[in-house]
Parts: sequence; C-alpha cells; structure tokens
Amino acid sequence: MPETTTKKSLRVIPLGGLEEVGNNMMLIEYDQDILIIDMGFMFPSEEMLGVDYAIPDIRYLEKNQNKIRGIIITHGHLDHTGGIPYILPKIGYPPVFGTKLTCGLIKERLEEFKMHKKISLNIFDPKDSLKLGVFIIEFFRVNHNIPDGVGVGILTPEGLVVHTGDFKFDYTPQDQKPTDFTKIAEFSSKGVLVACSDSTNAEEPGYAIPEKKIEEVIDDIFDDAKGRIIVATFSSLLSRIQQIINASINHDRKITISGLSMQKSIEVGTRLGYLKFPKEYFVPLNRIKNYKDNQITIIATGSQGNEYAALSRMSRGEHREIKIKKGDTVILSSSPIPGNERAIHAVMDNLYRQGARVLYKKIMDVHTGGHGRQEDLKLMLSLLQPKYFIPIHGEHHMLVAHANLAESIGIPQENTFIMDNGQILEIKSGQAKIASEKIPAGFTLIDGLGVGDVGNIVLRDRQVLAKDGMVVIICEIDSDQAKLIKEPNVISRGFVYMKKSGRLIHQIKREVEKLFSGRGKEYSTDFPDMKASIRDRVGAFIFKKTERRPMILPVIIEV
Amino acid sequence: MPETTTKKSLRVIPLGGLEEVGNNMMLIEYDQDILIIDMGFMFPSEEMLGVDYAIPDIRYLEKNQNKIRGIIITHGHLDHTGGIPYILPKIGYPPVFGTKLTCGLIKERLEEFKMHKKISLNIFDPKDSLKLGVFIIEFFRVNHNIPDGVGVGILTPEGLVVHTGDFKFDYTPQDQKPTDFTKIAEFSSKGVLVACSDSTNAEEPGYAIPEKKIEEVIDDIFDDAKGRIIVATFSSLLSRIQQIINASINHDRKITISGLSMQKSIEVGTRLGYLKFPKEYFVPLNRIKNYKDNQITIIATGSQGNEYAALSRMSRGEHREIKIKKGDTVILSSSPIPGNERAIHAVMDNLYRQGARVLYKKIMDVHTGGHGRQEDLKLMLSLLQPKYFIPIHGEHHMLVAHANLAESIGIPQENTFIMDNGQILEIKSGQAKIASEKIPAGFTLIDGLGVGDVGNIVLRDRQVLAKDGMVVIICEIDSDQAKLIKEPNVISRGFVYMKKSGRLIHQIKREVEKLFSGRGKEYSTDFPDMKASIRDRVGAFIFKKTERRPMILPVIIEV
Repeated sequence: MPETTTKKSLRVIPLGGLEEVGNNMMLIEYDQDILIIDMGFMFPSEEMLGVDYAIPDIRYLEKNQNKIRGIIITHGHLDHTGGIPYILPKIGYPPVFGTKLTCGLIKERLEEFKMHKKISLNIFDPKDSLKLGVFIIEFFRVNHNIPDGVGVGILTPEGLVVHTGDFKFDYTPQDQKPTDFTKIAEFSSKGVLVACSDSTNAEEPGYAIPEKKIEEVIDDIFDDAKGRIIVATFSSLLSRIQQIINASINHDRKITISGLSMQKSIEVGTRLGYLKFPKEYFVPLNRIKNYKDNQITIIATGSQGNEYAALSRMSRGEHREIKIKKGDTVILSSSPIPGNERAIHAVMDNLYRQGARVLYKKIMDVHTGGHGRQEDLKLMLSLLQPKYFIPIHGEHHMLVAHANLAESIGIPQENTFIMDNGQILEIKSGQAKIASEKIPAGFTLIDGLGVGDVGNIVLRDRQVLAKDGMVVIICEIDSDQAKLIKEPNVISRGFVYMKKSGRLIHQIKREVEKLFSGRGKEYSTDFPDMKASIRDRVGAFIFKKTERRPMILPVIIEV
Repeated sequence: MPETTTKKSLRVIPLGGLEEVGNNMMLIEYDQDILIIDMGFMFPSEEMLGVDYAIPDIRYLEKNQNKIRGIIITHGHLDHTGGIPYILPKIGYPPVFGTKLTCGLIKERLEEFKMHKKISLNIFDPKDSLKLGVFIIEFFRVNHNIPDGVGVGILTPEGLVVHTGDFKFDYTPQDQKPTDFTKIAEFSSKGVLVACSDSTNAEEPGYAIPEKKIEEVIDDIFDDAKGRIIVATFSSLLSRIQQIINASINHDRKITISGLSMQKSIEVGTRLGYLKFPKEYFVPLNRIKNYKDNQITIIATGSQGNEYAALSRMSRGEHREIKIKKGDTVILSSSPIPGNERAIHAVMDNLYRQGARVLYKKIMDVHTGGHGRQEDLKLMLSLLQPKYFIPIHGEHHMLVAHANLAESIGIPQENTFIMDNGQILEIKSGQAKIASEKIPAGFTLIDGLGVGDVGNIVLRDRQVLAKDGMVVIICEIDSDQAKLIKEPNVISRGFVYMKKSGRLIHQIKREVEKLFSGRGKEYSTDFPDMKASIRDRVGAFIFKKTERRPMILPVIIEV
C-alpha cells in the first residue's frame, strides 16, 4: 500500500451550520478518535412544512460511535445545544462538556426530556484543559449575547485547531469577563494550523455593538416610558435580560416574568450566578396590581409571534393577569426569524389597537447584538494567524463574505476552505485538502415524536397538499367486469369549498364514469394502471377547469 | 326624519392597503357617485397557502356598481393596478384613468388577460382636470421609483380630498420631472379637507434616498466589475432599469434582456418614451457571445428567487444562453418579499458556487428607494395642511407611526383617523367621524382560475394538510349490522412514510376494528356519528403515538 493512504490524517468535518444559520455541529477526527464541537438544531425553513425542528444528519456518527470521545459545547444557545436530546440516544450517550451556565441550561432542558440521568454533563472552567482521546483541549473566553461562552483550541497530532464558537469583541461586556486575548495570543504563538470562525455577521461592515451601548438604548426607552414596560425577548438571551433587569432597577421598577421558558431560564441564570437579580425587585405576576404602572417591568416570551407565548396572549386580550392598556410600552427585542414576520406584525398591530406604544429597535436585534462584524472578524483572524481557515456558522454567501475578509488581511485564497456540510478537510503532514469522499449530511427532521421519519416524500406530499389540497375518488367496481357498480364518490379537502362546488364535483364523477365506460376489462387485473388512469384523466380535467393541481387519490373497491 | 340622516355626506372608504402592504384601493363616495382610487393586488401572505394573489373584497362595489363613475390609477405598479383584470368584470367595466405610462402598462397586462377590448382606458395629462359625477379631479406629479406617477386632488361638495399615491421627494429624479410643488401649494391655499398619504416608510427616519445617489452606487459597481454584469430586479421598477441602462452606456456595455415580463416592461417603457434606451446598445440574448464579457450587461427577472425566472434558471445552470462563470457580477436589486428569503438565498448560494460575485446593496432595495421617509412625510403634510388626515398604504403599525409624525407637526390627534379597511370616514358639514357601520372588507383570494372560491374553510384545510398530512380510512360495512365486512383500508399522505410505517398503519386498523366491535347497531342509521367516532378515536390514537394531528377522513361504504 502506498504511504499516503496508511499515514493517519486529521479530518475536520462540519456536520451542520455551514449551509444554514443554526444546526451547528463540527467533527474533529483523528484515527480512532472523534471530538464533536456543538450539537445544535434549527427552526424549520418554510418548505419544511409541519416540522418542529431540524437537526444534522448523524448517520456517520451512528456508524462510528465507538470513536466518539466527547462533545464540547461552546455556549448555551439552542443552535449549539438543541440537538443533544435527539442525537445522544442514537450515539451511545458520549459525555458532554461545557462551562457552568452552559451545562446548567442543558440540564434544565434534559429534565424536560426526562433524560438528565442518562447523560454525563461535565462542567469545565475556561482555564481547565481536557484530554479526550488523542486531543488536548483548551478554552478561551469569548463574548456573545449569553454569558460563559468559549472558543476552543484542540491540539491534535497534526497541530492546533481553533474553533471560535459564536463571538464578538466587547471591551465592556455584560458579565465583565472580556475576551481572553492572552490565551488567543498563546495559541497564535504556538501556531494555529486551522481556524474555524463565526461568519454570521460577515456581511455587516464595521464593529459589533458593545453591550453597554445596547444598555444605554434600553435605559433611554425606560426614561421615556410613562406606564408599564413590557419587554419580549428570547428566553436564552441572558445578556439582554440582565440589561432589562438593570434598567428596571435604575428606574425603580419591580420586575415580573410571564412565560414558562422565560421563568426557567431566569431561574437557572440567577441560581448559577450569571444573572444579578436582587430578590426585592421580583414581583409575582398576580401581585403587580399592587404597584403603580410606572413601577412595573414585565419580561415576557413571544418576541417571535408564537401563538401561545405570553406576548401573543396579551395582544389578543387572552392573558389572564395582563390586559394591555393605553400607556403601556411594549419592546420587541429580536428580529423576526424568516417566516414569522406576519405573526409578529399581527401581534404588534393588536397591541397598537389596544393603545400600547410598540418599540422595535434594530440595535436590540439578536443577530445585530451577538456576533462580530467585519472588523471583529478581521481582528480574530489577525490574532490567530492560522495557516488554514474555514469560515463556519452561516449560509454559503456569508462564508464567501468571510473568506473575502480573510483574503483582505493576507490569508491566501487557496488556504481558505469554503465547505459544505459533510465535506472533509483532510490534513496530512501539514498539508490540507478537501477529500474526494463526503459523509452523509443534510437535515434530519423532527416532527412531534418522530425523529427522521419525515423525509422528502412526506414533505413533498405536504407541499402538494398545502398548495392545492386533495381529491379522493372512491370507485366501487364489479371485480369480474371492472365496471363501476355505482356513481363514484368524490371527497375533497383544501381544493374547493365542496358545498359551493356541486357542479365541478359532478363533472369529476362524469369524467371517471367516462373513463370506465370507455375502457374495458383489461383493468380488472391491474389496479395500479386503473388508478393511474383516474389520476391522469381527473388531474387534467381539474387543471383545465381550475388551473389547480390537487393531489388525486383514487381508491378502488372490489365488490 | 331628523336632519342629520337626510343631508348628504362625503364618505372616504379604504377597501385595501390599510392593514397590509399592497392591495391599495380607496373609495370616495358622495350620494350617488363613487370614485375609486387605485385597484391593486398583493402577493399572498404565508398563511394563504397555495394562493396566487389576494385582492380586496369588492362586495360593496358589486352592489353599488351603478354609482361607480371611474377608477383613477396613481401609477403603474401592480400593488395599484393588479386587481383590474379580476375586479372590473364584476363591477360592470367602469372607465379607468391614468397617465400615459400607467395606461401603457395596464394595457400590456390586459392583453395577457385578453381583456383590453372590454376596458375603457383613458390617458390623462397631469395638467388635465376630469369631472366624474360630482367630483372634479386634478393631479400633481409625484416622484416614485417608476415614472409618471401622480397624486390626486378630488374636489367634492364637502371640500377637497387629496390622495398622494406612492411618493418620495426627489429634486433630481430619473425622469427629470420633479414633484409639482406649485399644484400642491394651490391645493393647500384652497384648503385641504382630508389628506390621505403614503405610510410605507413612516417608520424610517430621515429623508428618502434620491435616485441620483442610487445611480452613483450602480455606477461604482460597474466601475469595479471585470466580467459580465447581471442585474436582477422587478420588471416594473422602470427607474432602476433606466439607471442600469445609463450605467451600461457610461461603461460602454451592450445590454441584453432575459425574462418575458422584463422584455415587455422595457418594450412598453421605451415605446412610450419613458425609458431612454438607444437601439445601438441593445443586443439579443443569442448574440452576446459576439462580445467580450466586460462589454455585456444582462437585465434579468428573478430577484425574488422565483423558480422559473431567468436568474433562478441561471443559478441552476438551466438557462439556455447564459452559463454563470467566474468573473460574473450579479446584482440583486430588491429586498425579499417575506416568505421568499430561502429561495433567494438558495439562488445566491448557487451563483456563488459557480464562481459569480453576488452583490446585494440595501440602497438599491425597492422599498428603500421609492417611498418618502419620515422627513418627507412631514414635508408633504406641512405643504398640504389638511384639516383631517388618513395615513394610508401600510400595516397598522406603519399607520400609527405616520399618525405620530402628523401629531409632531401640529395636526391634532383627534383629526387623524387610523382606519381599517372597510371603515367609513363620514364627513358632513365639515365634521368628520368614523361611521358605526362598516362595509365588507378583507381578502378575496385568487387561486388559478378561481377568484374568491378559496375561503377560510379551504385555507384551514390546507393548513392542516400542510402541517401533518392526512389519513383516509375506508370501512366497508354490512349495512344491516353496521359491522366491518373486511379489514379497513388506510391510506395516508404527508403524515408518515407509509412503506416504513407498517406497524403504525396496522395499529390504526386495529383501533378502527375495536371501535366497531365495541359498539353496536346504533350506527347503521347514523353515518355522521360513525365517522365522528372514527375521527376521534383514530385522531387520539395517532396523537398519542406521534404527537401529530393529520386530517382524518373516514369513508364508509355500505355493501
């Protein structure tokens, strides 16, 4: 065997997060050892009808579970942790490692899944170093819009791989723990073989907005508000929540919480010491009526317009304790996830109609807030000085933008790899190249209790049904003669309003009858052929009459 | 009868465009006369599954068609003209009035519908005045991102109503015909009773970007491009198209066009003299290979990621004449219509993968470009000095923002009416109030050839089908005994992949059998009850097993 195929190599394999925002998951593989960085999920895109979440395809991990040494989670957001309860049972429950807050948030979620006893959750301090298989792992604090996030340095037999996690540079961060520049410099002086860096904001010029600046904006809004203040945000956005708590304290407002996930997240954050929330400022929801309006802040779920979240219930007047009224100021602190725009606008409009003032400040946007922009990204690459660079976390066009930034600061184009999920960057004797093979990658869909049982066929059917509905045609036939023994029965849903479409339904029945009378006995032994004929003929007829293409389901019953 | 009910009154009734972006349509009614301003459509929102367009509910007009004196169209964009071919046949083909370009674009579209001979299209010059019923109508030029737009002044027996259409202030507009300030001042000096003004950008601070500035940005992009330039934009965005033509001429590039609607729109614009496109710069698509890459500009459809539009075909390598290659610069000159984000990103990513440089400049965004921002809106109101103000064209929150601007420049809050579609502002003896009655309003949906036959029931069914698919359960029963005579047949689509779900399907059959064996003869005379039982039992069973709620369609066949 030639030498090249026998020598071991380092393989860096993104399983998710390089063709989408979310689903972040990266494998570092060397010979018999696999290390996993992050295990996220994503919310479904518009074409994934009826799906709750998508996670990465993990067939490669299922096959190689004996190699998995552990999972490092960079921070506690669901696009980095959401896949854990779905994936771990399928890959033999390897140990999970994270900082204190990260592990706290994961544990909370695993309890919902009744899975917390099965999973080994290991807290590390960013100063610690871990040894998992051949890998020696160290960390560096980064800033993001949740505390306790880290970047990861993985010393492999080929050299050092650095993964930034999600980050921005913030010299005055919410938790007062700035980026660990010393550690980054240490990595750099040892020599970074491969850097993987966050591309979420690679298309945004300038610098990330410091949390202090965001805090000032919030404080200004509080200055102006005359009545109650209601802030809706993601429950995982702990930095934002801390800012709202701070502004409330500054303005002598008590704070109440509405929404289960918000309660839990604040509870975990406070218990572990990542949220500073003095007890005397907390008021239970049912006690706010004891305070004047200008003494109350409400932190609520529902910034994405979700039908049953607290803010949506308020907007419809269905919230038991909180009735919106003139004088209320509502702050929406997150940009819409694509597909949610209408729902969010409906919530906003209903709040307006009830007299609230509604504020949406771009500066308080989740994505504006948490991720480094072009100048930050250049700084990170300038600090790390990697030999090879993989832009991660983003859709392809964002990765391209990040690659262009890298080139602008002197990383040669040929040393940057814009990868797809499932591609393998193979490094042997210090030389990197994309392998010709690929591992399976894509989305595994979660729908209700099913993980992976909704695939392309089911989705395609849902798309057809969503667009033009369906028509079931039931034909009772004499099995000897292959003749209809009574008028076919036609049932449709989502196609036309049946009660007002008597004529069309009648015509469809006639078409089916014509088909049977026109053709003979050859059907009797060939149901699939009979069904295909009905589908074609009725489909063409319906399209001519309506320019719609409902799904047509012939049912043949032999009597 | 008391005097108040007998005296005639002026009624201003928005039929569309006040709870959404698009669908613009406004009625001005006095006694026996109705004047219609604009007749737009909108693209469906996400919950309108399978729908092509929505138009306003026109039941009120159908009932009162004998009163309709005419339709004034403010400019040639589809959100102001798109409803014409659907609505006119239902209201007796009243005459349509517009400027030369507006009528030219409408005519082009009516020809597609083979309707151009039935509709009386009347061109006016903005200097003309019209008399329709009791109304005397005059116009003022406004600037927008299509030439030949006007605002309208309608002299009614109660006073002057001014409708701005879509507008921005641009002192150096593309077509060199700036806003007619003189006419606006004339209106103002006569006294404006009611002003209706465009709210699309009421939430954006500052001033609208002048077209000259946008032209500079385009020119800069052309300066940098080394190979072919491909610009995708809306075919109706004639100002943008003129800028691209100008930049091409400046850079000595020939221009070719890809996409039918783009060809038509450029043809109409050029023929009527609104686009200046010197013949010697045009090259047919099949001749571009005779030129060097840096001598070619391609103007294409597909800025919204539409599957069959020119740019999408290029991105998939399916365009016959244009194969994307390294060196191509692709410019996307429109922001995504909500719901199209994924499709657009997929197109972008595919273009990148084939080596193109892809540019999306916020400044070239449709909505950034065409509509006045806060300072423009304040200027318009300051010029008009209306007694009453109705913010129009926008979702409720945009109207609220516009109302706040009005208050900031001294229009008393109680004189501004933030209306919903179908509400009536009634003005009698100079006093305005919202009438207690409402006329029918909302969306009429267009799906294929059907106008209005897709309603809430059909949409709700499509939503259920889209989310979890459906299960048809066919039971053949003995009609005397109400007993199953064979195993029920189960067919599902969009729920689970049937070939891999044998066990679940089997269990569903068992549930149905248990239901029949458990209950007795009482069914035989009551099919609806039998069906409801199957639906309930199977629905509950399926939810327990899968946490999904497919539509369940029981079919009972008596043998």
